[in-house]
Amino acid sequence: MSCFDEKVLSSEKIYEGKIVNLRVDTVVFPDGRTGTREVVEISEAVAVVPLTDKEELLLVRQYRHPVGKTLLEIPAGKLEPGEDPLDCARRELLEETGYEAGSMTRLFSFFSTPGFTPEELHLFMAGGLVLKEQNLDEDEFIDVVKVPLSRALEMVWNGEICDAKSVIGILAAGSLKK
Amino acid sequence: MSCFDEKVLSSEKIYEGKIVNLRVDTVVFPDGRTGTREVVEISEAVAVVPLTDKEELLLVRQYRHPVGKTLLEIPAGKLEPGEDPLDCARRELLEETGYEAGSMTRLFSFFSTPGFTPEELHLFMAGGLVLKEQNLDEDEFIDVVKVPLSRALEMVWNGEICDAKSVIGILAAGSLKK
Repeated sequence: MSCFDEKVLSSEKIYEGKIVNLRVDTVVFPDGRTGTREVVEISEAVAVVPLTDKEELLLVRQYRHPVGKTLLEIPAGKLEPGEDPLDCARRELLEETGYEAGSMTRLFSFFSTPGFTPEELHLFMAGGLVLKEQNLDEDEFIDVVKVPLSRALEMVWNGEICDAKSVIGILAAGSLKK
Repeated sequence: MSCFDEKVLSSEKIYEGKIVNLRVDTVVFPDGRTGTREVVEISEAVAVVPLTDKEELLLVRQYRHPVGKTLLEIPAGKLEPGEDPLDCARRELLEETGYEAGSMTRLFSFFSTPGFTPEELHLFMAGGLVLKEQNLDEDEFIDVVKVPLSRALEMVWNGEICDAKSVIGILAAGSLKK
């Protein structure tokens, strides 16, 4: 516990949706005043850095409606209820890229934007990749692209790869391979 | 334009709040079917990696209500209307840490979670730090902590630093200083 904790006085559900829920909590700040905090509820997720034996990354290209752009990202997805993050990482890699992983190593976990959502992502690195068959969700439209790790690092620094979880995965892989 | 673009048929405002707005768009998917996309609207922001001449980072410790934890993060904040990201980076660094930057270098920008929000963060590195006075917003309660960059990198890998923008800033600083 920290001296900066905020006690929740009440919680109002604003919206329950397909991907996100929204609630507004009334809290007591550390100085005794009260205020509100908006919280976007969303499931835990995994993200996978799939690295081939030739130090190429498997990236997925998909249109992201909120930003109005097609982005190049590492494979990722939400945990099914009760699903283990490792199983989810294997499932999402196979569904989105068509590749099965011979090895799957957990790197670390992080909160995407803890100022307004508890969304947590678990980051894995996949190796020993074997091509099987892609199997997308009904609202997923994805191209798979192979990019050398060294080129992906350049693309982070020049802004061509600009999705936070992908930036983290690629910088992490780059620091492991140095 | 990509062949995966989604045309918006209609847009419903669900909530307008202090920090976030929520809308639900009805879109046409690339295969011609229609569906909905939930979008959490939030202002653009900056994040700053403040590095002292002794290769120490200035980090801020604050309670994050959505995750129910006190996190160690790099300084960050939202752009005021019409504000230039560079000016915002200087302002937020000073407000949150009390330090003025002699140099402020833009590294790159990224989307925090493009699956459900257009939130974009511009990442800067600050040097030539000179102590002035901290000046927090009324709902900010923040401690400033100096951590050697090498130790901050360890804290990313062992999960002690687990805020995405901070993970990105620290991994980026680590790869620049290698």
